[in-house]
Amino acid sequence: MPAVELFIQDLAVIMLIAGVVTVVFNRFKQPVVLGYIVAGVIIGPYTPPFQLIQDEHTIHILSELGVIFLLFSLGLEFSLKKLGKVGATAFLVALAEISLMLWVGYEIGIFFGWKTMDAVFLGAMLAVSSTTIIVKALTELKMKEEKFAQLIFGILIIEDILAIGMIALLSGIAATGSVNAVDVAGTVGRLLLFMIVALVLGILIVPRLLAYVAQFKNKEVFLVTVLGLCFGFCLLVMKLNYSVALGAFIIGAVMAESRHLPQIERLIEPIRDMFSAIFFVAIGLLVNPTVLVKYWLPILVITVAVVLGKLVSCGIATFLSGHNGRTSMRVGMGLAQIGEFSFIIAALGVSLKVTSDFLYPTVVAVSVMTTLLTPYLIKLADPLSMYLAKSMPVKLSAVFRMYSTWLESLQPQGDRAALSKIIRRILLQVTVNLAMVAAIFIIGGYFADMLGEYLSAWITDEQVQKALVWGGALLVSLPFLIATYRKLQALSMLLAEMAVRPEHAGLHTSAVRRVIAEVIPAFSIVGIMLLIVILSSRILPPTNLLILVLVAAAGLAFLLWHRFVKLHSKLQIALFETLNEQPEEKH
Amino acid sequence: MPAVELFIQDLAVIMLIAGVVTVVFNRFKQPVVLGYIVAGVIIGPYTPPFQLIQDEHTIHILSELGVIFLLFSLGLEFSLKKLGKVGATAFLVALAEISLMLWVGYEIGIFFGWKTMDAVFLGAMLAVSSTTIIVKALTELKMKEEKFAQLIFGILIIEDILAIGMIALLSGIAATGSVNAVDVAGTVGRLLLFMIVALVLGILIVPRLLAYVAQFKNKEVFLVTVLGLCFGFCLLVMKLNYSVALGAFIIGAVMAESRHLPQIERLIEPIRDMFSAIFFVAIGLLVNPTVLVKYWLPILVITVAVVLGKLVSCGIATFLSGHNGRTSMRVGMGLAQIGEFSFIIAALGVSLKVTSDFLYPTVVAVSVMTTLLTPYLIKLADPLSMYLAKSMPVKLSAVFRMYSTWLESLQPQGDRAALSKIIRRILLQVTVNLAMVAAIFIIGGYFADMLGEYLSAWITDEQVQKALVWGGALLVSLPFLIATYRKLQALSMLLAEMAVRPEHAGLHTSAVRRVIAEVIPAFSIVGIMLLIVILSSRILPPTNLLILVLVAAAGLAFLLWHRFVKLHSKLQIALFETLNEQPEEKH
Repeated sequence: MPAVELFIQDLAVIMLIAGVVTVVFNRFKQPVVLGYIVAGVIIGPYTPPFQLIQDEHTIHILSELGVIFLLFSLGLEFSLKKLGKVGATAFLVALAEISLMLWVGYEIGIFFGWKTMDAVFLGAMLAVSSTTIIVKALTELKMKEEKFAQLIFGILIIEDILAIGMIALLSGIAATGSVNAVDVAGTVGRLLLFMIVALVLGILIVPRLLAYVAQFKNKEVFLVTVLGLCFGFCLLVMKLNYSVALGAFIIGAVMAESRHLPQIERLIEPIRDMFSAIFFVAIGLLVNPTVLVKYWLPILVITVAVVLGKLVSCGIATFLSGHNGRTSMRVGMGLAQIGEFSFIIAALGVSLKVTSDFLYPTVVAVSVMTTLLTPYLIKLADPLSMYLAKSMPVKLSAVFRMYSTWLESLQPQGDRAALSKIIRRILLQVTVNLAMVAAIFIIGGYFADMLGEYLSAWITDEQVQKALVWGGALLVSLPFLIATYRKLQALSMLLAEMAVRPEHAGLHTSAVRRVIAEVIPAFSIVGIMLLIVILSSRILPPTNLLILVLVAAAGLAFLLWHRFVKLHSKLQIALFETLNEQPEEKH
Repeated sequence: MPAVELFIQDLAVIMLIAGVVTVVFNRFKQPVVLGYIVAGVIIGPYTPPFQLIQDEHTIHILSELGVIFLLFSLGLEFSLKKLGKVGATAFLVALAEISLMLWVGYEIGIFFGWKTMDAVFLGAMLAVSSTTIIVKALTELKMKEEKFAQLIFGILIIEDILAIGMIALLSGIAATGSVNAVDVAGTVGRLLLFMIVALVLGILIVPRLLAYVAQFKNKEVFLVTVLGLCFGFCLLVMKLNYSVALGAFIIGAVMAESRHLPQIERLIEPIRDMFSAIFFVAIGLLVNPTVLVKYWLPILVITVAVVLGKLVSCGIATFLSGHNGRTSMRVGMGLAQIGEFSFIIAALGVSLKVTSDFLYPTVVAVSVMTTLLTPYLIKLADPLSMYLAKSMPVKLSAVFRMYSTWLESLQPQGDRAALSKIIRRILLQVTVNLAMVAAIFIIGGYFADMLGEYLSAWITDEQVQKALVWGGALLVSLPFLIATYRKLQALSMLLAEMAVRPEHAGLHTSAVRRVIAEVIPAFSIVGIMLLIVILSSRILPPTNLLILVLVAAAGLAFLLWHRFVKLHSKLQIALFETLNEQPEEKH
């Protein structure tokens, strides 16, 4: 049979069986995801009576599209403002979860007498929860809008970022047998930088582009534009060696700020549902019941470890960050599974040839088991937290209550709360501006050779070329540097006002304040310039030219100060306009 | 790079370039299809600067999904009632078009000194117009609801059916060098039978199933069910060796009778748009500009021949069937291109190793050229028909007017019109019932061996087994046979009343009428039984057992006559209920 017919046949079998199983599962009020996985096992290669899927390769390629569309639509539902609200908690919980699970996974591997590398990879596989499965479960339970769900989504984002660092770490360990902390920090840093720049530029450009295309009032053109942007960005992310899933999420988050969000969601939903069905069926295809039988004990132990480990680490970390028992329990239960990232890490181990053969199927089995458990665990959270609250010894619950009260007392109140909000805002703006500057110099370094070749038609001296490229990057950065300087100035005035009180400094109050307000930004700018010099070491011109460029830049900054300030504030206003825009329509 | 990443990259490139080109084409008010094909040429393997597509194979597989979704959604927009209205014209036009184009194509091939087989295949490739491209063009011109568009869709359906017969014919010619008319008639007959049975059973079952699933109020489950039914039916059609495109169209037409049609359309539209973009980009990928240069003369000649040949044959045939000049011109212009069926026939020639290498790219080029022309030709139709009407010699236009008047005078009026409508209706019902009977016996024959094996546990005599299977098929057919008999009785009474007038038959009027009314159905039933015997020759029991079975069936028919009548009328009512149902909602 020709390849095309084989493929259509496979897809037909998948869709037909998924359809039947889904209707049955829905009829008996079971999660649809479970139905898909069961459908996958039924048509999979390991279960009689038939080998129904001929071209597994193409199906797995299509299931990758499922990951992209699931994460893209997760991004669409994501809100930067909401991440801002849950940021600190999310970071704490993700860190606690990953640390504990890395250790637990490693210990389990050692306990079963596996190779050290198998144990290390097992730890990594257990560390990260599954975004796709959680989104699916929460959507079906109609809980996606609740507070704990927003917290979970925040944790998942931080987890994804940390997981990408972890992948770099594992590759390093596998290659050299040792950990290089600098490399890992560099990887995570570049990733964060990329995310900030992508979000800022994306939010400036993409919603405006979509508004332009939307005016044609042609659904097909709009859809193809959305898909073009989505896949185009995924391609860029892939070329930078990040995961496509992360790319789909970021571009989704960018489009979430568009006025046409409801329209995008309506168009993407059916496509996502189609491919996510294929994705989950494809996971089912991987389940080999005989491996389940042979490795039942490790699978069982790992499953229990995943559920308990994540429940404990995430639950306690959430509680310690100041959330109530009910929310903490729900967060812990919601995160108690492993999924697509575990498969990615398992595949990494296989491709690096450092893990044993049984590890991949074992992890898939654990993922299936924990996936099946997820909706029930989420449903169980409320009764369990109520039961715990009732049956807890009086003394223990008093300790918990004291902790909550103490934590609340730490929160700044009144004026101090307002001030701390302003300071946080300034720091965020400084971070974003510095990220832009760093990105400009890194991109400049990346394209330096190409630009140099282009310039060589006019300028033959390589050093002068470098100076021009570097100076160009500095010129583009100037608005951001000036903005950073002004923000830092405002911040130091604020700090000076707070720190230097008249009751202590007496007559010198205003003088001391002025000094502080001038010195901090000046030193910061010097620090920033040093950082830039390090980042752009590849294209840094020799000292004499560097000083020339710097003087020229300083002169330019002085002359065009107000223009730069205006340009920057225009950009900033455009950004905030988009962020604060309300969706055009809601159906 | 791993296969998955290659694929994502290809898809990203396609979507990104398609997005950009589409926006540009839409901005300059050009058809989006054209944009897709141009995008395909740009990223294709034959144009510098880059070879942007790595895994053409997977892209072509995906583009096949484009054909399925395009035809499925064409089916959704199709209405059986409308085909009934345009049926006769559609058949006449399709026949005229295919006959003329087969001859024109053959003559062109011979003119250029190509092999006989190349010329024959060229004729076949030019015979059938492209459903996908017409639908696309009419949708973009917002003309899909107009009368001539409905006529075109009718013609395309008949064309598809004839094309499938043609494929059987070509395979026969290629294999034996001669035409076997019986084989071709058999193929087309079985296809028609399959379509009737699929539509009747489909309309009885599918809308009810969809109504059941819709009550869960879960969009995802509904979508997966729709996709499951669509692909499941395509799989069945493929197993019967018909084209997947035809299957997608039929199941679409079946779902068009569902109350939930607007919901289905809303869910399918984005998926269709995504895959049809891929489909048209994939066609662009095939265009090799160097072949265009080398074979520019044949391509030009064939393109002109396609446009003129189809315009003349379809236009004149439409006019001769009683449509006005404007409609005829629009139909002719609309059908003036070749597309996916030509590719299928070209691929057939390649796989049978009877055609030369240059034929495939040449036909693709002609298809691209005629595709590009289609929207402009449709737009040109109105001005051209107005110009022709004005500049036509007075005598010629008088002849045309006389023809129209004469044709109108042929149309039955008043009582005769009502009678002819009733007779047509009865004949349709008889056809459908006979199709069901034929299908039951063919399916019985198909599964005879399996049933026989199953029965052999109780009955060892093979002849008795046959008798049982055959008798079973007869039993299932009885309601349809009885219904056929009753319809034929009604028809013959009507005919007797019309044919035997008291002024001629005098006193014998009622006696003669009664004889006619009894004799026709009786003879017809005997004829039908003979046909069944021929169709079911494989499972026919020996004469003595056959007579036994027939006597038993006659007894059963006599005893349960009213039950069978009731059962059949229930089915018929269910069918008409579905056909006459209005959509639940319209957004």
